[in-house]
Parts: sequence; structure tokens; C-alpha cells
Amino acid sequence: MQLSKIGEFGLIEKLLKKCKNAPPEILTGIGDDAAAIKQGNKKILITTDMLLEGIHFDLSFTTFFQLGYKFLAVNISDIFAMGGNPKYFFISIGVPKNYKSEDIGELYSGILKIAGKFGVAIAGGDTCESRQGLILSGTLIGNTDKIITRAGARAGDGIFVTGTLGDSSMGLMLLKKQASEARSQEFKDKTRNLKFKTLNPKNVLPLIKKHLMPEPIPLENTSKITSMIDISDGLLIDLSHICDKSMVGAVICKDKIPVSKELAYTAKVLGTDPVDFALKGGEDYVLLFTAPQDMKTTAFKIGEIVKSGRFIIDEKGRKTKFKPEGYEHFKNSNS
Amino acid sequence: MQLSKIGEFGLIEKLLKKCKNAPPEILTGIGDDAAAIKQGNKKILITTDMLLEGIHFDLSFTTFFQLGYKFLAVNISDIFAMGGNPKYFFISIGVPKNYKSEDIGELYSGILKIAGKFGVAIAGGDTCESRQGLILSGTLIGNTDKIITRAGARAGDGIFVTGTLGDSSMGLMLLKKQASEARSQEFKDKTRNLKFKTLNPKNVLPLIKKHLMPEPIPLENTSKITSMIDISDGLLIDLSHICDKSMVGAVICKDKIPVSKELAYTAKVLGTDPVDFALKGGEDYVLLFTAPQDMKTTAFKIGEIVKSGRFIIDEKGRKTKFKPEGYEHFKNSNS
Repeated sequence: MQLSKIGEFGLIEKLLKKCKNAPPEILTGIGDDAAAIKQGNKKILITTDMLLEGIHFDLSFTTFFQLGYKFLAVNISDIFAMGGNPKYFFISIGVPKNYKSEDIGELYSGILKIAGKFGVAIAGGDTCESRQGLILSGTLIGNTDKIITRAGARAGDGIFVTGTLGDSSMGLMLLKKQASEARSQEFKDKTRNLKFKTLNPKNVLPLIKKHLMPEPIPLENTSKITSMIDISDGLLIDLSHICDKSMVGAVICKDKIPVSKELAYTAKVLGTDPVDFALKGGEDYVLLFTAPQDMKTTAFKIGEIVKSGRFIIDEKGRKTKFKPEGYEHFKNSNS
Repeated sequence: MQLSKIGEFGLIEKLLKKCKNAPPEILTGIGDDAAAIKQGNKKILITTDMLLEGIHFDLSFTTFFQLGYKFLAVNISDIFAMGGNPKYFFISIGVPKNYKSEDIGELYSGILKIAGKFGVAIAGGDTCESRQGLILSGTLIGNTDKIITRAGARAGDGIFVTGTLGDSSMGLMLLKKQASEARSQEFKDKTRNLKFKTLNPKNVLPLIKKHLMPEPIPLENTSKITSMIDISDGLLIDLSHICDKSMVGAVICKDKIPVSKELAYTAKVLGTDPVDFALKGGEDYVLLFTAPQDMKTTAFKIGEIVKSGRFIIDEKGRKTKFKPEGYEHFKNSNS
């Protein structure tokens, strides 16, 4: 059977079955945002991400600095999603021979910029030649006193998100449109009915920035949090991960999904629904968590954990089932 | 400036300068076999390696099982080189769509085979589609009570290796010869004077196995060891790393370099010098260490650390300087 017929999640499941004998000091294993391992009197968190040119990023509209920034940002987001503090980053990089060392320097400048912000040290890595485009593979190690997994949500908990959703995927769509205008006809079919020309840059640029340089933000107080994940694949997919691991259901309210004014404006001009981007877009890198409903927080409450079933209630009060679907064509990748 | 003009080590040096502010709990940083970090009452070791199809491995003469085995073996070797115990492995993998899932399963079987031997748990990773050949990036975490770096060798110490050298690079040359016969004229020029046809498979197969499935072996007792590295780039290069980091010189004796009977036989038939493979071949994954000369060990003593200078003494007692050179054309890679 070829891989294309299984898909990424199928492959991971298949491989997981081969890797069952975890020792007891591994507190959470494969299938959460990061692995948690007890080491003496400490709990360390380890997350690893691979970014491939042409799959996960497109250097025709991402600078090397932005790429470096995002590379570490998405790993920091994974550590935050486990309730941890990011500490040490290891960078393996495959670089084609004809790439300029100045550009690779810019990539590292972007990594160091966000590393400095969050107190992360670059502690090692591997460098090699690639004949296959730029390859980035990072491992971020963090630590924590309290590990928060995807598996603790209880019926009756509120469902919260720490920021607006959908900006990143709208930003990516605009970037692809720009790039395709300069380069090819790739997106003409999808976008020919949309009124890009009339968009105000003041509203467009924040969306693009959210995509190119996402800014992870940790929760200040995790004491009452019952489960958490960061939104990378999209709200519907990532909430489904929490439901799966916690063996619960969820009801979310469409009109409570937080949407930025920039996304609302842009979607209106384009004649599309901003909440669609918020539900299915992905790469928001805000935190999605569950906690008692009365918890004091600045996060947005978007729904409630229930015993079973996954529902979305629209503006008119109609309740429909949702599936873990994302808009693949909004992404650089199908992974 | 293009990367090809700097080379890998130049690039790492350049990047290193940007990453200077390591916190005090990082005990050894970039530039050793693994990073060592103090976590509470424990010292953890972290090493990371990236293997790229077409650069580091060639699926025309490596099975997926062998590739998986070697992938973890080289990381285990790095942890052994720091005096540590390998514990948790994280696998990031980029797989082309048209690869068979059975083959990726075999790759994991190879990883699990050696993981089981050395008590390593697969604790996480990342899986994605690659449009660029198979990409493997691994991070192995270990721990130790005593960290051994490249930087402790003292004048007067003996220089030891834990196994025979050169087998792997001879094995690779034979594999490439076989592959080129089946596939192309690539190696005809280099090998046309060598009498491959007359080689005895009984001697060839162990050399090939050493290349495809190297078997890392830890030192049982590291209490007297002053510095250590694993031989991946070749004896001359790796000994030079110890000299650089320890700020010492070295004298090695050509006739004390351990060479297997299979390599001696094969080199004789081919009319070439086996010690050349042992000095410059690389990918042996045996340990090179320094320790007091009177240390009781089953390792081979090949020379002595001196205050300065790097010399090799040949069979006739002639002393010549050596440089950190490897046989690039014996490798799959120039990295």
C-alpha cells in the first residue's frame, strides 16, 4: 500500500503500534503536542517538528528571517500547549549548495530573535548539504511542574481559546494570491471572484504577519486547566483531538468564535465567511483549552464539553454535527 | 558567498558565533558529540542527526531495515562517545508519497531492533510528506553521571580505539562498485585496476555489514577516560577534533592501528593499503579515547597525546605530520 492512500495520521497510527513498550518515566508518549519524561526530580518536555521547502514553506513569499522565527515559534507553541517553559533548541538543517550563507544567517537571526524573547538557548544540531531544497528539523526541550495533556477534559468544562482564529489562513490565502499573480495561474480559478484589488493594506498586513510570524503566548496560570492543545491544524481538527483523547464530546457556538476585525473586514470585502477560516484554517498557534466554566480568564469561551457528540450551533440556534475537517487548500501542506 | 565555498564546518562556525549566550546549566554546547544539560539532579545528553536520501544513504544498496538500524546506531554512538546511556529517541521523517508503507514499516523495524538491544524507547516525532526523497531526522536523549567531552586529553595520555578501523569505508566502496556495475559507469574509472572479481565473499560480507549496520559498543568503565569521540569522519579528522578541543598534539603509530583480517585480505587482493582506509575512511562508529597509558583496557593503544604537533610514525620509524583529512569519495556525503 502506498503512503498516499493512508495519509499522515494513518501512518503514525501504524507506526505507533510498533512502539508500545514505553518505560514508566515517559509520562505522555506519541500523540500529544510534546512528550513528557520524568528525569530525577524534573519533568522535561520534548517536541520535534520538520519543515520542508515546497511542503511547509514557500520562499517566494517568506523571508529567511520570518522562516527562522516561525520555525521556533511553532515548537514553542507545542511546549506552551503542554503547560511548559521552552528552554533548549536543537536545529538540524539541510541546505542546498547554491543557497547563500547570508540567507542562512538571516534564518538563524530569525530563530535567535524569538529565542531571545522566550529565553530559549540554541544548544546544538546538525548541518548537512541537501540536494532537495531547504530542510529544517527542530527539537525543543522544555520543562514544567504540571503537565497538561489533551486527555483531561470533562463534561461540563468550558472550551476556551486564547486569541482570534482564522487570521493566519486568510493571510496565507492572500500571500498565495500575490505570489500566483507574480508567478503563475495557480490560484486564479479559486480567487477570480474575489475582490482583492479593493482590500486595504492596513487590514491585510496584520493577517499576513500572523501567518508568517505567529506569536505564541503562554497561559499565565494553568492550575485549573483540564486539557490543552495548540491550534495548528484548525479549531475543528484540534478540538476533535481533545475529544478523542479525553473521550468526551463538545458543543461550540459559531457566534462566540473570536475573529479579528481585520479578518472580518477582509472576508466581507471578499464575500466569504470569516468563521469558516476560523474553524478550518489552521496555523493560528493560539491555545485551545478546557477548564471549569467559572474560571477567571481573558481567554474567549467558545463552548462546552459534553458527554458525547460534536456539535456547532449557528447564529440562528441551529445545531449541526461537525467533523475534524480543515481547509487543505489553505495550507502549504497536507500534513 | 555561496555555501559550497564555506563547507559544512565553516557554516557551523559562522552560526555558532550567533549562538553564544548559553545558560549555565548547558554543560557542553555545540561542537561535541552531544549536548549535556543539567536538569535538577540529573545530567541529560541530547544528540541530533539528519540523514538525507542521495546524500547520506543510497536505497539501491541499503534496505529500509538496515537504514533504520543505522539511523539509530549513529545516534547511540554519539551518546556512548559522551559516556552516556541512550534512553529516548524522537523520529522526524519526511516520506515521498509513492513510497510503500511496508517499506516505512521495515525502516521502523530496523530502528526498533537496535532500540530493543540498547533499551531505547521511541518517545515521539513528526511525520510529513516529502517531495524530495526520504528524510530522516532523529534526536536521541540519554543520561549520565559523568560527562566525557573532547576537551580533556593531556600530554602523556595514551590514545585508544575500541575496535578495528576502515572496515566500513571498504564496505562502502565495495557496495558502490556493485551498484555501479548494475547501474552506471560512475565508479569504473576509480576501480578499473582493482581485482574485485577475485574477492572471497566470506571476507567481503563482514565489511559490508559494518557499513550498513554498524554496532556501537559502549565503554564499560569510563572513570579514567580524559576525552572521547566516536569515529564518524575518520581517525585523522576525529583525533584532530580531540587535539583542537583539548589544545594538545598527538603521535600515532601506523602499525598499531587495528585492522580486521577481512580488510587486510581485501586490501591485499585489491593492491591497496588497508591502513589508508583505517585512517581516512570514516563511519567506523568505534570509540576513540584518551586515558592514562597504564589503564587496563581491551581497547587498542595506537599512540600518545603530546604537547603539540600531529604526527604519524610509519612501519620504518619515519615521522610525518598528518592533517585532518578523510577520503571524501569513500563516503556517500561530503558532510
